[in-house]
Amino acid sequence: MAHNDAFAAQNRHWLSQRGVFAINLISSPGSGKTLLLERTLDQIKGTIPCAVIVGDVHTDHDARRLVGKGARVHQIETIHSCHLNAEQIGKVLPDLVQDGIKLLIIENVGNLVCPAAFDLGEHCKVALLSVTEGEDKPLKYPLLFSVAPVCLLTKIDLIPHLAWNENLCCANLRKIRPDAEILKISAMDGNGMDAWLHFLEYHALRAKSQKQNLGG
Amino acid sequence: MAHNDAFAAQNRHWLSQRGVFAINLISSPGSGKTLLLERTLDQIKGTIPCAVIVGDVHTDHDARRLVGKGARVHQIETIHSCHLNAEQIGKVLPDLVQDGIKLLIIENVGNLVCPAAFDLGEHCKVALLSVTEGEDKPLKYPLLFSVAPVCLLTKIDLIPHLAWNENLCCANLRKIRPDAEILKISAMDGNGMDAWLHFLEYHALRAKSQKQNLGG
Repeated sequence: MAHNDAFAAQNRHWLSQRGVFAINLISSPGSGKTLLLERTLDQIKGTIPCAVIVGDVHTDHDARRLVGKGARVHQIETIHSCHLNAEQIGKVLPDLVQDGIKLLIIENVGNLVCPAAFDLGEHCKVALLSVTEGEDKPLKYPLLFSVAPVCLLTKIDLIPHLAWNENLCCANLRKIRPDAEILKISAMDGNGMDAWLHFLEYHALRAKSQKQNLGG
Repeated sequence: MAHNDAFAAQNRHWLSQRGVFAINLISSPGSGKTLLLERTLDQIKGTIPCAVIVGDVHTDHDARRLVGKGARVHQIETIHSCHLNAEQIGKVLPDLVQDGIKLLIIENVGNLVCPAAFDLGEHCKVALLSVTEGEDKPLKYPLLFSVAPVCLLTKIDLIPHLAWNENLCCANLRKIRPDAEILKISAMDGNGMDAWLHFLEYHALRAKSQKQNLGG
């Protein structure tokens, strides 16, 4: 883990120097990370220069869904590992994150456990929790929800068809991380996308100023 | 892994000698394992003597949902591990699986990656894939779907509200495991429960005959 942390620190330094804001998206398989990314890239095209790293155990399906949307995309197949690590990310950065990129989005392997333990050098972990997964996941997988300042409650278009209890879910999240920023979002119908895009824009611009402060 | 496999072989031998059929339920977090178990225990109460082992990283929520349904239930909190292992199961068996038990259901940690690699000594792995997770998971997490002879497509009551393509999902499953037995099921409205209960009854009875063969 010290080995990983050293690479993560290098990555964060490298990204910060270049004024790139990096986020690490972590969730269960099938919580809607890739659809959210498709919609996000469509919306920020032309305004936030962006690169994407997609982690999957097998296949490059997700990366292929994201090409042609204005962002450079790199797929990492982890094969025998259930998470990305910082060394894998570091190897990709120099080629992928070219001058002018302001935002790096890393879509981690779908897994609520191990990815949370591996710092990749991002500036912010973003947890996704789809409303179809129930309200108890923050308590059952506390590490992720404690290290992610932002949690996206996804697939909210399905709420009318579920017995999902929003108050209970948010209370469970706040038990684990009282200051969590919770955004409700449906990539399917676009509900809640504005707040998410505002979050990305805000931080990508802040990262730009840091670069200027560093003389970049 | 050899260490785990040795414990798994011991567990399987121990269970087979006693005429117990053991299954290992594996899926993403939130795919509906615990609700399915609640409904299953309600249905088999009085007909198939059953014990349950529930694995979670944290909390005993799931175990508490299953008490009072006629089965002995034991919770294992894995804390820093994203899967159950055979040694943990072996320690629990002698106390939990008392004489007369015909079925042991192990609910693994919610994770599509690592649990598939650890044989617990079960007789059959059962993969759950909720229809909300999309059609591509068998290709992205092939190990689980290759080692599980049975796959339950869960939450089918939500199909009318999704863009889920059943033919594509089943074709992806069959690419990974051509002989997979695929059962569609909704624990919420009971649709498809009959085939699942029939599968359990059939194998619990077969396990009984093996015990008789062994002179048990």
